[in-house]
Amino acid sequence: MRANDPKKVSGELFTLTYGSLVAQLLKDYENVDDVNRQLERMGYNIGMRLIEDFLARANPGRCYDLRDTADKIQQAFKLYLGVSPSIGSWSPGGDEFSVVMETNPMAEFVELPEHCLGLRYSNILTGVIRGACEMVQLEVMAWFIADQLKGDNMTEIRVKFVKRLEDAIPAGED
Amino acid sequence: MRANDPKKVSGELFTLTYGSLVAQLLKDYENVDDVNRQLERMGYNIGMRLIEDFLARANPGRCYDLRDTADKIQQAFKLYLGVSPSIGSWSPGGDEFSVVMETNPMAEFVELPEHCLGLRYSNILTGVIRGACEMVQLEVMAWFIADQLKGDNMTEIRVKFVKRLEDAIPAGED
Repeated sequence: MRANDPKKVSGELFTLTYGSLVAQLLKDYENVDDVNRQLERMGYNIGMRLIEDFLARANPGRCYDLRDTADKIQQAFKLYLGVSPSIGSWSPGGDEFSVVMETNPMAEFVELPEHCLGLRYSNILTGVIRGACEMVQLEVMAWFIADQLKGDNMTEIRVKFVKRLEDAIPAGED
Repeated sequence: MRANDPKKVSGELFTLTYGSLVAQLLKDYENVDDVNRQLERMGYNIGMRLIEDFLARANPGRCYDLRDTADKIQQAFKLYLGVSPSIGSWSPGGDEFSVVMETNPMAEFVELPEHCLGLRYSNILTGVIRGACEMVQLEVMAWFIADQLKGDNMTEIRVKFVKRLEDAIPAGED
């Protein structure tokens, strides 16, 4: 990881630009569930692109289990969003964990109007996680279970392991 | 200006998120002129918010003429986008100048498909300039005159002074 990465933009500009995106989707779609879905889909596409950059920059090494994966997600939040979430609340089976942010940089200065209480404002993040993991042969589900925009005292994303995906092996190879 | 601003996000994440916004607008509007207009409008709203942050962080002091303003715009590009544009190509009357970027961080990895050649992909920037200036009582016009996405060898935004706006003086004050 480059110590002084020149390709940084201000959090304010990012937050305001993301806010414009969410506002546009709220105009476009009839209900907030569709907006949530569309944000997740956009995040999925972003995650599929971002993972390459992450592998190149952070040189994270191979994940041998879900705890490794959780560590990389924590590292990626630091690298891309400038925050250090904590990882915890593991399920007894070890197949589910939480990514907890004390402050969510995507939602700074945001207040949800009353008719948008069903909106998962930062839902793009769950898509980014899903898309990035899928590119390294890991199918996961990710969803918000707590959100400061809704009065919770932290922002928490739950990540659940679904299955390992098989590498597509070119015909003729073993 | 804080030397080590903690609120930074990665350029890649910003670029990909902005790309999602442009793609969404291309789906929403029938023609690229409307997309260009909408991007400018979004930028205008962002600029009106961002200027407060800029005044608080960069402590730029008062502008006495358009050259001062150009310097602040240069400084703001550095602070928010992480690039140092050059300022130049002043009009003989001193009322117009160019902001020139050798690389445009908003448009990295972007290629315009053929049916989008009329798109001013980074048009949000012209809106940001207009909105921010308006909040400090300066009406300007801003528009792209060169764009690397269209094969130009740099990206150039032209800024033209229109007029000073009067401070709104509360009734009863002088």
